Amino acid sequence: MSTTVIRGGLVITATEETRSDVLVDGERVVALAAHGSEPAQRWAESADRIVDAEEHYVIPGGVDAHTHMEMPFGGTFASDTFETGTRAAAWGGTTTIVDFAIQSIGRSLREGLDAWHAKADGQCAIDYGFHMILSDVDDSALKEMDALVGEGVTSFKMFMAYPGVFYSDDGRILRAMQQAASNGALPMMHAENGIAIDVLVQQALAAGRTDPRHHGRVRHPLLEAEATHRAIQLSRVAGAPLYVVHVSATEAVAEITRARDDGIAVFGETCPQYLFLTVDELARPDFEGAKFVCSTPLRPAEHQESLWRALRTDDLSVVSTDHCPFCFASQKELGRGDFSKIPNGMPGVENRVDLLHQAVVEGRISRRRWVELASTTPARMFGMHPRKGTIAPGADADVVVYDPRAEQVLSAETHHMNVDYNAYEGRRVTGRVRTVLSRGEVILDDGTYTGRAGRGRFVARGTCDYLG
Amino acid sequence: MSTTVIRGGLVITATEETRSDVLVDGERVVALAAHGSEPAQRWAESADRIVDAEEHYVIPGGVDAHTHMEMPFGGTFASDTFETGTRAAAWGGTTTIVDFAIQSIGRSLREGLDAWHAKADGQCAIDYGFHMILSDVDDSALKEMDALVGEGVTSFKMFMAYPGVFYSDDGRILRAMQQAASNGALPMMHAENGIAIDVLVQQALAAGRTDPRHHGRVRHPLLEAEATHRAIQLSRVAGAPLYVVHVSATEAVAEITRARDDGIAVFGETCPQYLFLTVDELARPDFEGAKFVCSTPLRPAEHQESLWRALRTDDLSVVSTDHCPFCFASQKELGRGDFSKIPNGMPGVENRVDLLHQAVVEGRISRRRWVELASTTPARMFGMHPRKGTIAPGADADVVVYDPRAEQVLSAETHHMNVDYNAYEGRRVTGRVRTVLSRGEVILDDGTYTGRAGRGRFVARGTCDYLG
Amino acid sequence: MSTTVIRGGLVITATEETRSDVLVDGERVVALAAHGSEPAQRWAESADRIVDAEEHYVIPGGVDAHTHMEMPFGGTFASDTFETGTRAAAWGGTTTIVDFAIQSIGRSLREGLDAWHAKADGQCAIDYGFHMILSDVDDSALKEMDALVGEGVTSFKMFMAYPGVFYSDDGRILRAMQQAASNGALPMMHAENGIAIDVLVQQALAAGRTDPRHHGRVRHPLLEAEATHRAIQLSRVAGAPLYVVHVSATEAVAEITRARDDGIAVFGETCPQYLFLTVDELARPDFEGAKFVCSTPLRPAEHQESLWRALRTDDLSVVSTDHCPFCFASQKELGRGDFSKIPNGMPGVENRVDLLHQAVVEGRISRRRWVELASTTPARMFGMHPRKGTIAPGADADVVVYDPRAEQVLSAETHHMNVDYNAYEGRRVTGRVRTVLSRGEVILDDGTYTGRAGRGRFVARGTCDYLG
Amino acid sequence: MSTTVIRGGLVITATEETRSDVLVDGERVVALAAHGSEPAQRWAESADRIVDAEEHYVIPGGVDAHTHMEMPFGGTFASDTFETGTRAAAWGGTTTIVDFAIQSIGRSLREGLDAWHAKADGQCAIDYGFHMILSDVDDSALKEMDALVGEGVTSFKMFMAYPGVFYSDDGRILRAMQQAASNGALPMMHAENGIAIDVLVQQALAAGRTDPRHHGRVRHPLLEAEATHRAIQLSRVAGAPLYVVHVSATEAVAEITRARDDGIAVFGETCPQYLFLTVDELARPDFEGAKFVCSTPLRPAEHQESLWRALRTDDLSVVSTDHCPFCFASQKELGRGDFSKIPNGMPGVENRVDLLHQAVVEGRISRRRWVELASTTPARMFGMHPRKGTIAPGADADVVVYDPRAEQVLSAETHHMNVDYNAYEGRRVTGRVRTVLSRGEVILDDGTYTGRAGRGRFVARGTCDYLG
Repeated sequence: MSTTVIRGGLVITATEETRSDVLVDGERVVALAAHGSEPAQRWAESADRIVDAEEHYVIPGGVDAHTHMEMPFGGTFASDTFETGTRAAAWGGTTTIVDFAIQSIGRSLREGLDAWHAKADGQCAIDYGFHMILSDVDDSALKEMDALVGEGVTSFKMFMAYPGVFYSDDGRILRAMQQAASNGALPMMHAENGIAIDVLVQQALAAGRTDPRHHGRVRHPLLEAEATHRAIQLSRVAGAPLYVVHVSATEAVAEITRARDDGIAVFGETCPQYLFLTVDELARPDFEGAKFVCSTPLRPAEHQESLWRALRTDDLSVVSTDHCPFCFASQKELGRGDFSKIPNGMPGVENRVDLLHQAVVEGRISRRRWVELASTTPARMFGMHPRKGTIAPGADADVVVYDPRAEQVLSAETHHMNVDYNAYEGRRVTGRVRTVLSRGEVILDDGTYTGRAGRGRFVARGTCDYLG
Repeated sequence: MSTTVIRGGLVITATEETRSDVLVDGERVVALAAHGSEPAQRWAESADRIVDAEEHYVIPGGVDAHTHMEMPFGGTFASDTFETGTRAAAWGGTTTIVDFAIQSIGRSLREGLDAWHAKADGQCAIDYGFHMILSDVDDSALKEMDALVGEGVTSFKMFMAYPGVFYSDDGRILRAMQQAASNGALPMMHAENGIAIDVLVQQALAAGRTDPRHHGRVRHPLLEAEATHRAIQLSRVAGAPLYVVHVSATEAVAEITRARDDGIAVFGETCPQYLFLTVDELARPDFEGAKFVCSTPLRPAEHQESLWRALRTDDLSVVSTDHCPFCFASQKELGRGDFSKIPNGMPGVENRVDLLHQAVVEGRISRRRWVELASTTPARMFGMHPRKGTIAPGADADVVVYDPRAEQVLSAETHHMNVDYNAYEGRRVTGRVRTVLSRGEVILDDGTYTGRAGRGRFVARGTCDYLG
Repeated sequence: MSTTVIRGGLVITATEETRSDVLVDGERVVALAAHGSEPAQRWAESADRIVDAEEHYVIPGGVDAHTHMEMPFGGTFASDTFETGTRAAAWGGTTTIVDFAIQSIGRSLREGLDAWHAKADGQCAIDYGFHMILSDVDDSALKEMDALVGEGVTSFKMFMAYPGVFYSDDGRILRAMQQAASNGALPMMHAENGIAIDVLVQQALAAGRTDPRHHGRVRHPLLEAEATHRAIQLSRVAGAPLYVVHVSATEAVAEITRARDDGIAVFGETCPQYLFLTVDELARPDFEGAKFVCSTPLRPAEHQESLWRALRTDDLSVVSTDHCPFCFASQKELGRGDFSKIPNGMPGVENRVDLLHQAVVEGRISRRRWVELASTTPARMFGMHPRKGTIAPGADADVVVYDPRAEQVLSAETHHMNVDYNAYEGRRVTGRVRTVLSRGEVILDDGTYTGRAGRGRFVARGTCDYLG
Repeated sequence: MSTTVIRGGLVITATEETRSDVLVDGERVVALAAHGSEPAQRWAESADRIVDAEEHYVIPGGVDAHTHMEMPFGGTFASDTFETGTRAAAWGGTTTIVDFAIQSIGRSLREGLDAWHAKADGQCAIDYGFHMILSDVDDSALKEMDALVGEGVTSFKMFMAYPGVFYSDDGRILRAMQQAASNGALPMMHAENGIAIDVLVQQALAAGRTDPRHHGRVRHPLLEAEATHRAIQLSRVAGAPLYVVHVSATEAVAEITRARDDGIAVFGETCPQYLFLTVDELARPDFEGAKFVCSTPLRPAEHQESLWRALRTDDLSVVSTDHCPFCFASQKELGRGDFSKIPNGMPGVENRVDLLHQAVVEGRISRRRWVELASTTPARMFGMHPRKGTIAPGADADVVVYDPRAEQVLSAETHHMNVDYNAYEGRRVTGRVRTVLSRGEVILDDGTYTGRAGRGRFVARGTCDYLG
């Protein structure tokens, strides 16, 4: 097989920073050696390819554990396909995504999973896994869960929001959690009290409060906190762990913190939009607020400090994107005159690693925590470590060479996501992906994409690394 | 009108203990004077009747804010009628009850309230009011709430338990709370996650775990805590106060404590059965555990300490009975072979004041707190103060002369409730009601009942005294 | 003896509001009767004196549990003597004070107490009691504590602040608390970490930060919270209750709240200055900030909300004044150029009842809570109930007839305290004392003071009413 | 230089488990390669030495951040010299210790540090660093702190216990913390309220309670919690981080947890004795309880669960030994008849790694957490990473080959510490050190010690890795 040496960079993992050269043989990292050491010198002489990483960071490729490519929502589909979305991910330094396959109501998990396999197969620039969304928990779905765990789909998301669509009641949630307790799967939760929110939505609309601002008002922080607490108690009754997606409210963070203090296996994820944007965006004129409609919603600025605090103390453990783009021109429009019809979701898969690096630049998190949040923990959380999420002998050679000093301006003009706006339009950040290897192959280098659709492979995942 | 002097006792109210004589004129207390003072002497000379209270306590009659006379449940009816139940209450030193009128699904509040008025009218030995149970919150029910507040029915109970029967979903709860926020009513909540509990019930039955013990196991303390937290958050979103009935679990108390620490208007009630009995009763042989089936269920002994602590710190503010008796022989039997069919409820209206006095004897609460928990706070909570719940000029002359040294043994042999068992059978307590006045009339004296059905009047209640 | 009827007012106690006439015979309240009732009519006909209270509130006289008349501090003395100070108290509706006798270092408690008796004897307009400040806890002081409890001095204050002056180290505090645990006394604590504060003071002065503003900065809220927590833990180890004086910081309130949630016998007091003034006053130009130098210091505005919250939830139970006035012109001057030399203390004994009534007007507390905070709880806390703190048969006839609609402007121009400024200068409040009875004698009526120095008597107090 | 390959083991670091061969060149690890890979094969062929690690774990050598070799205490000296103690450490898989140099009262830090250098120089089997104990904080000591940081002594311990010996008052603590805030040092704290404890000690002795049991009773858990809280607040005021040594009480853990939830830089250490032994040991007959006298003291069994919970959630981050052995026969004897004269301390440096591995075997912590607690975190906490605490290119080749299946019985018969008892005498554990490399040199192999006194070097440490 062909060998590559990534040479002279600062190799950063979740716990180490070493000046090492990384030897890649075929798809795997096979060895690391101190830069300048005798083995490193020998590799430099014999390798088929040398990637110069002097003055750069060498980090494990990002793992985005929360994407929705081509997701159907409100009569339309998220605008990134697996092809465009995974390519954009690669541009942004992410080498693995875990997307959500969906069980439709009245249908089997198998049917949903097969449909997602069909969408992704042959399309992806990078490796990918699937979580499964449970929309219709019944005896047969519970049995299918066991089978899917065996196929490497080891996490199952439920919704306490969206009655009539994805919503599961507490009984179904409890049953699925019990099943997870027995088969080792990780339950994931969209924690908002959708039943109560829908009352507030109807009241707002009836009162003529129809513009996007009201999306942020009806989805009350206490209704996120409530559902978070409820999910935690149900998981305790079931004896199952719990992963709460897209945590955005101070009060919800507090519930997770409280549970973790008691040693309960609860994990929280947040997303860049909650860390870098606020509810004020929803008030943009000319319906532009619709660009920022997602659920959980953006929150008032004071919530951000709680999220950063929790990322530092590990009460929140993962930063994913919840990438679910809808074009402003053609899709977000569906909700003009009725904010509840705006497709929920924002683009972000390409910007996550850079935005988190910006937090390093601003002193909010350390470099190692950056790597941990963006890559190592999601890989461990979802059973892909040590293949993904680290740079170590035996790991997949998913490696990013990152220039910590380059500046860039985020913009729809230059991004590669298939969507007509960028949520961070005009924001200047320091740091940029220079080279990306996916399983040993350079797929992006110095502004040139050299990958191809279909080289990304499905990752059959194991179970969560943080249990037992 | 006829005057009575209650003479020589220690008058105990929620904040005072004074050696005073109490002058009753007609139905009201008109004056108090220091025992031995000139006015007191004069009253003794001129009164139509003198009640000697030397060596006794003189306390406001008990207010039991949670009873279910003749309540339909599981195909049968609570065995005490308003006649038998209120007479038993009088025997136990309780001079006011607030019973629960029930809206049936698909029917109006009016219809439910009228039915309860019909049951109670002309039957009661003591005064009574009604809360209203909301089973079917819709636009018209919300409008009716306003009307009922005007008629003195100012508190509305909803159930997070019992799906298909009394259960309201979170949207309905939120709407009713919003209505209460505007009309001044007090929402009451049975806080257990019934949707989740029903799953556990079905699983238990399917596994052959059918005896009464399992009633206590499937109704998990965390599912009480969960619902309590949820009700609190919904009330905060609605801007309404909240009264949580029959709190039994340490974890639920903790939620109420936490909310009260934040200055939120949440109030908690517990009942003697949770303070004096434990889940072990449910394991009694020969199906006798069924006698102790109620919801929330009896808990393991370690929960009691939390309840007593909370009663002392006012995180729990009221002790009511949730009196809802079903005869063992004919009614509890319905659940033999299927604990979920056992009618839920226990007798207690006659024993509450004595059991709480026993807590005084044992040093758990002070005498003033005894009066406060048993009479003053429920009267204030439910808008009946200062007519009920105290001994003060202008108050209804609902007065109990209590012998703090008498001993008695609680037993179905001697009790006056219409039910074939006593939950505290054989328990020896110190303290006993000697004389009871209801609106100035002696209805019980030295073991002789002198009241009559129909003298008790409906009390049109105002709104909660602890708000604003 | 001579009888007085207070007629037609709304009698407000901690739990009741009744339209009652109050019959006073000699020094005591002997009876209350519903206004217009037969006994009330008769009293009106036969009483020696009638006080018309129509349209007024009739409340128990205020109990100010924290004053420092003629207190020596920093080489000067508080400017109110017992004569001027108690007269001013009467003007403000306060009929009992509890002042602090001081043990000097190296001297006995007896000597200190005798000195205070000498100062007060024959001087006071109203009744008074003494707490004792322990400055030098040793074996003999501990023994003396028992004796003083027998004489009605049942509360003992220690200081975690003021090293070299009043400061007690944790060992002395623990020993005094142990003694209190055995003799029933109530330990009181000035909870600030004086050792740490003194370091910050020296650093500020060394850096030239000498003006009054820095008083507020060096006395850090966390150093109040720290000492509060420490005092609580020491009291738990000793098995004694604890009363924390002049709580001002959110973080200190949180410690008390936490302890009370656990059922620990800890009580908190705050003062009007913390409720109505902020640290900004300390920045007034021309050294005027010195007027507002007291310890604990005034805090940033955001702390006030915590205090009000805690007053509502009873995590703070008493509002006293910590009245300790020093004239601006001659006394506060001592600290020009060195804020640490400014005598610590503020006037307030005359304004407390009115300021708290203003909180009623503004909807922060109810009328009954007003009475409870200003009178009933301090009386119960310090063993003077039911003689003081209520209007009930047998109680001392310390009664205030209060006009809830009168407006007044607080000012040094009009106040009666012997100090050249008023901390609330120019503040308009609604409500005003009209008539004051002290043990049955009218000492103030419609703007005329009719009392006299020396009619106030020493109150031998019992032990705290909230224990056991 | 000479090369070594450690071959075929499971290399475990804080975040990775990989089957890798480790190449050591001279004193450093230079490279890791996947076992069986081409580079690994080549190393095996060319290395000077091969250490076979098949079926073994390959872990970074233990870092014991809390030892007291030859420490003077109560008129005697800890029985292990740097020679015997570091050799015993090596036997137990620990390759670095950080010992405490002591400033004597009235003397300079320099003098204390020089004395410790003199003791350790030429004696140690393994590398060592020094913390500095501050006994006399004054202006000159504060200045010296800066100098010591420059020499690699970057952590400074103070005592809230032991008045008259090591005790610092809160002012001195605050000043030292301020200095640390400016020079980057890490303040360490022995958090017990020694002033209060000494009162309880004197009372116990005066009452004739002189045997070792009373050591555990007078050092009350609340007095540990109190001091912990106090240290945290002082550190917040100073703006400094804080490391709390030998945390043993549930209530102290709670304080640390609470602070960490708020994002405060507080770190906690516990020791094997608190995890594996209880206060019951102190009651052993024949004065044998004295063997278990250390401070903080052993606690009742229920505290252990809190400690394990906190180790899992990282509220406690380090497990050190507080190794401070005193022989039972000659030293512990000093306290016969007066428990306060028993030298405080226990042996343990040799047993820590094995005991923590036993926790892995019992399912309490994962293998990676074992390595993290025993090696990586202490190395990072005290500024020795990445030289110490990991196996990575560039790190010191301090490596342990660990047999996870070997069984052993802990005993003074077989241990190498210079003390006549083992605290875990007779305890059977699974797992045992097989081979130890210290900076590339095999110093222990298969039961043969091949190291020598004097090869261990002083480690000039950087600052804490968890700040900023």
